[in-house]
Amino acid sequence: MNKNSSNIMALAPNTSNKRETVCIFGTGDFGRALGHKMIQSGYPVVYGSRSTQISNLIPKDAEVLGHAEAAQKAAIIIIAIQRQHYGFLTPLAEILHGKVLVDISNNLKLKQYPESNAEYLAQLLPGSKVVKAFNTVSAWALQSGTLDASRQVFVCGDDTEAKQMVMNIVRALGLTPLDKGSLLAAQEIENYPLQLFPMWKFPIFLSLGLTVFFFFYCLALDVIYTYIYENNNFSFFIAITIPNRVCPVMALILLALVYLPGIFAAIIQLYRGTKYRRFPDWLDKWMLCRKQLGLIALAFASLHAVFTLVTPMRAFASWRTSKGIISQVLNNKTEPLNNTNAWLSDSYLALGILGYFFFVLLGITSLPSVSNSVNWREFRFVQSKLGYVALILCTAHTLVYGGKWFLSPSAYKWYLPNIYMLSLIVPCAVLVVKFVLIFPCVDKPLTQIRQGWERNPKYSQ
Amino acid sequence: MNKNSSNIMALAPNTSNKRETVCIFGTGDFGRALGHKMIQSGYPVVYGSRSTQISNLIPKDAEVLGHAEAAQKAAIIIIAIQRQHYGFLTPLAEILHGKVLVDISNNLKLKQYPESNAEYLAQLLPGSKVVKAFNTVSAWALQSGTLDASRQVFVCGDDTEAKQMVMNIVRALGLTPLDKGSLLAAQEIENYPLQLFPMWKFPIFLSLGLTVFFFFYCLALDVIYTYIYENNNFSFFIAITIPNRVCPVMALILLALVYLPGIFAAIIQLYRGTKYRRFPDWLDKWMLCRKQLGLIALAFASLHAVFTLVTPMRAFASWRTSKGIISQVLNNKTEPLNNTNAWLSDSYLALGILGYFFFVLLGITSLPSVSNSVNWREFRFVQSKLGYVALILCTAHTLVYGGKWFLSPSAYKWYLPNIYMLSLIVPCAVLVVKFVLIFPCVDKPLTQIRQGWERNPKYSQ
Amino acid sequence: MNKNSSNIMALAPNTSNKRETVCIFGTGDFGRALGHKMIQSGYPVVYGSRSTQISNLIPKDAEVLGHAEAAQKAAIIIIAIQRQHYGFLTPLAEILHGKVLVDISNNLKLKQYPESNAEYLAQLLPGSKVVKAFNTVSAWALQSGTLDASRQVFVCGDDTEAKQMVMNIVRALGLTPLDKGSLLAAQEIENYPLQLFPMWKFPIFLSLGLTVFFFFYCLALDVIYTYIYENNNFSFFIAITIPNRVCPVMALILLALVYLPGIFAAIIQLYRGTKYRRFPDWLDKWMLCRKQLGLIALAFASLHAVFTLVTPMRAFASWRTSKGIISQVLNNKTEPLNNTNAWLSDSYLALGILGYFFFVLLGITSLPSVSNSVNWREFRFVQSKLGYVALILCTAHTLVYGGKWFLSPSAYKWYLPNIYMLSLIVPCAVLVVKFVLIFPCVDKPLTQIRQGWERNPKYSQ
Repeated sequence: MNKNSSNIMALAPNTSNKRETVCIFGTGDFGRALGHKMIQSGYPVVYGSRSTQISNLIPKDAEVLGHAEAAQKAAIIIIAIQRQHYGFLTPLAEILHGKVLVDISNNLKLKQYPESNAEYLAQLLPGSKVVKAFNTVSAWALQSGTLDASRQVFVCGDDTEAKQMVMNIVRALGLTPLDKGSLLAAQEIENYPLQLFPMWKFPIFLSLGLTVFFFFYCLALDVIYTYIYENNNFSFFIAITIPNRVCPVMALILLALVYLPGIFAAIIQLYRGTKYRRFPDWLDKWMLCRKQLGLIALAFASLHAVFTLVTPMRAFASWRTSKGIISQVLNNKTEPLNNTNAWLSDSYLALGILGYFFFVLLGITSLPSVSNSVNWREFRFVQSKLGYVALILCTAHTLVYGGKWFLSPSAYKWYLPNIYMLSLIVPCAVLVVKFVLIFPCVDKPLTQIRQGWERNPKYSQ
Repeated sequence: MNKNSSNIMALAPNTSNKRETVCIFGTGDFGRALGHKMIQSGYPVVYGSRSTQISNLIPKDAEVLGHAEAAQKAAIIIIAIQRQHYGFLTPLAEILHGKVLVDISNNLKLKQYPESNAEYLAQLLPGSKVVKAFNTVSAWALQSGTLDASRQVFVCGDDTEAKQMVMNIVRALGLTPLDKGSLLAAQEIENYPLQLFPMWKFPIFLSLGLTVFFFFYCLALDVIYTYIYENNNFSFFIAITIPNRVCPVMALILLALVYLPGIFAAIIQLYRGTKYRRFPDWLDKWMLCRKQLGLIALAFASLHAVFTLVTPMRAFASWRTSKGIISQVLNNKTEPLNNTNAWLSDSYLALGILGYFFFVLLGITSLPSVSNSVNWREFRFVQSKLGYVALILCTAHTLVYGGKWFLSPSAYKWYLPNIYMLSLIVPCAVLVVKFVLIFPCVDKPLTQIRQGWERNPKYSQ
Repeated sequence: MNKNSSNIMALAPNTSNKRETVCIFGTGDFGRALGHKMIQSGYPVVYGSRSTQISNLIPKDAEVLGHAEAAQKAAIIIIAIQRQHYGFLTPLAEILHGKVLVDISNNLKLKQYPESNAEYLAQLLPGSKVVKAFNTVSAWALQSGTLDASRQVFVCGDDTEAKQMVMNIVRALGLTPLDKGSLLAAQEIENYPLQLFPMWKFPIFLSLGLTVFFFFYCLALDVIYTYIYENNNFSFFIAITIPNRVCPVMALILLALVYLPGIFAAIIQLYRGTKYRRFPDWLDKWMLCRKQLGLIALAFASLHAVFTLVTPMRAFASWRTSKGIISQVLNNKTEPLNNTNAWLSDSYLALGILGYFFFVLLGITSLPSVSNSVNWREFRFVQSKLGYVALILCTAHTLVYGGKWFLSPSAYKWYLPNIYMLSLIVPCAVLVVKFVLIFPCVDKPLTQIRQGWERNPKYSQ
């Protein structure tokens, strides 16, 4: 225990009457915003600044002093300056000894420095207790009070008491602290605000690429071919008909791509006879973005559902209906109900609805709050068992819908298959291999391998 | 450290065998319910009561003693009496010295007293460690075990150890403690259970008012006008047709109202040349309820979607379809497919679907667990970028749908514009001004101002 | 404080440079997986094993020693062996004195042993600090890095410092620790991973049973009866028509079953004149699964909505439309719009849409993150007030839809009522009794009873 611990001790019992002074080094934008907010929450704030010529931008209830004097007034000092200026703190090391230094800095890009800013600060001032916090909060949000985004403030640090003091300030500002452990977590915390959906990048680019490909594929077959050979201008297909062909194809393929890496992993493990060797890198990455692939697949499936449901409202659909009825009338015959057609149309719709239903269930269990409230066994039941049910139903939906066209030559315009045939390749492959993997003679060794058994224990040496 | 700390120390190591006695002052409803639950969870409970003539309502495994004797038996005393009777505790100050007092009281209305009940208790008994907890839990829920609502128990207090002891009890009762910091948070915690969606009030009343206005506007133009001048009784329009005109109008206007305050804020900041002056109060409040406005807009959009999708199932729709086809048959001509109509109908549907899709994405990221798992940059990307995409798509959807009627005189019944024209005013204004704000010559100074630059640094003096 | 506390003290200040050694007893599957992950996260790992003949399965950066030597190298020892082998630890009691022992074991089934494994360990080694953790994490997930399911690690233990040390490791592995209090919580934590949706079992079996019953009831009346007496083969009704009769019936009945136990509870309380006696067991259980019943009802309602919306796309529907129009044409008459029919069809659709809208609102507030962010008053408002609005609207929807058939003899095939009549029994009963309970003469005593008043205070003696 050092001489400054008295400062800390003094903090706790007195807070019921008034809050302890907080010192802020640096009068930049974020330092001012944080000071404003702290004054609003009842903290006396003192700024440490090179020039005590007070800028009028500083909150008027705050004091501005030189760094040394300001630091002496408080047990907690918020370092609102940039990492490249941390050097000027070293002469103050003695005054800062035992104080709690809150590093709130952010970098401009990932991996700018070898170690995190907070760890760098801790190295510069080994006698101070460095806590990383507040870097994920935006100055604009603090100032405007519109903290719509995450109210979570990640906090980490090696000194439990110092961390607790900072977490109390966080709570007082109406935010929620989240203890991320020791200062080693600072790297992760500093990277966090620089990210823009890192896990989503690959799945989104993959789906965009596939979508564009299938869109032009359909455009060629459905609009251009029809225009050239049948002289029909169906350019308006671009708005609904083609999207409604691309969406289900994308949904089915992406859903199958969610389950494909699991199939690969099983085959690799069976082949190697052990689970103790790393999967190839591409497989690891693929497995980590299965959730994102599944959610994008769900988005496509939802678009497909809505595009299908608006069909009767389209001018094209009502024109086609009228044409059909009028031709029946003019030919003076009423077509009887075709029972096979009724079965086909009803069962393909029912399969699609049920498949979508299970798909939505999967989506709901992917919500963070829902997946946090189920255990591992329940999660695997939903994502694996129900997921395969959804995949089977959706594949069957496509097969019943398009099955009759497989043998019809009119489906092969320009000798190219229709896209719903392309869409069936991956899901059918996944389902067939999965079916094989379920056989006891394959499933038993696989289960053993996954429980730690090795076919050839020396293999990995 | 005082003589009572032995009590506290003694608590921790022995809990593995049995739980420490808890004392409850007051045998009212909540005191009894809490006692029942604690006995169920294995805590010995002793009640402190004026009369030790035990009521049969008290859980039978509990002891009932006078206040002083009861307090001496436990390190934690739950104060289950009303604030106005706190006075009688002062003579017990010595016995309660060093004890943990848990204030569980609630007030009947907001701002009933100048300070929170827990702070008042701490002032009366400065030697005791006051912790606020349990006030958000309902006695009925505790007793019936149906804790469907929040299992979170907000806890605050100045003494960390005392808070920890109370949080352990909370956990033992199967509830989740949430540390809200020092006793200063007691005010907020006491206000919490008295609220009924405070942030939703203004958005809901605004939407109700606008809905009623638009409903009667439509009723006048679509039902009453038609009845008077065309002698058609379309009163059944009240059930679906009119709601399906009001809903999209409301959705579009409310969505635009989500982005309007941001526009105002930018203009004000550009005019003032600084971000360091508070916005007018109405703008602050408006900005704080943008999320609620957006979610209500989403509700209207969803209703619009479903109302539209059921159209083909309506008796009116099938009657109109039949009439159209029969008149074609009787006139013995088949209308060819009108390509322009097909384009218009398909593109207005596609725009609506895409707009709704982005709108639902915004709604999903508003779920607390989702918005907590994205960082500020990601949240802004979704809510700002994708939000404007949704607004543009929805406005375009309305323009394509109703554009042709702008110049048709039949759309101006009683010289009044149709409501979809009214609905376009706000979103178009927002989009036009936003478009101007994006221009580099406007965007650059605005970005500077938001980063802390000031055009006229003396301005705010 | 004992000699080992130096170990613990030493841990905190030095972590900024490197992590403290962790010892793992047992080289089984989970022990190895955890070791791998810890080494990845920067912890030196030493295994304690009977044979120091190192298996190649052990992570190569780990040391393997005898139990005693391994334990001496670390302050934290993870016990990755099965409960039945805990006995061999007793000779090591002296070495393990003051150390933190992390019990990560799971049982094969619920209630296998009288006390939890962690408590058993604490009894065997009273000088050690036992912490329960990691048992909810799967070895497979740790190794593959695909921690899709819950990242939460439940931690409990009697020693706060020991718990904190374990929670820091949990955080360092990228997981989220959740403090569940003292070691008494170990039982619950050990049961957790063995559960498979325990609260859902009864609701799901109930709905499955009812669904099967109603399905065959409909099959008999709609397909078999029609086939026998009208010689029509409507077997394709199995795909959509019959599911779309069963789903709304199930949704309505299950929604009513959510509110029925509340009605029973009110009647029982009124009859007994007190709220201080337990409800019968069946009622308690029923009340605890109301949320699940409601969500299953919502699933059925959603299926009903989609099944209804695809109606115009069915071959059967377009055949029937054509038939109707062609018969009008052939009879050379145009049917005028039937205003009553238009009213009925529109209002039944509108009631259904609004009912479903409120139903979805209830579903959204059931999401854990949403229900955690509302207070008890708000939750009751939504679930009780809005819930009854949904029930009233859905019941009215069914009444308007099927009302006209109540008196038609053709609705009673084989003297059996149509299922929508059966579906109305429970909701109508609930609504009628609830209506009676709202009357002031009934509501006042009920409210008093719920606030703790008793009609006959001696009753419960």
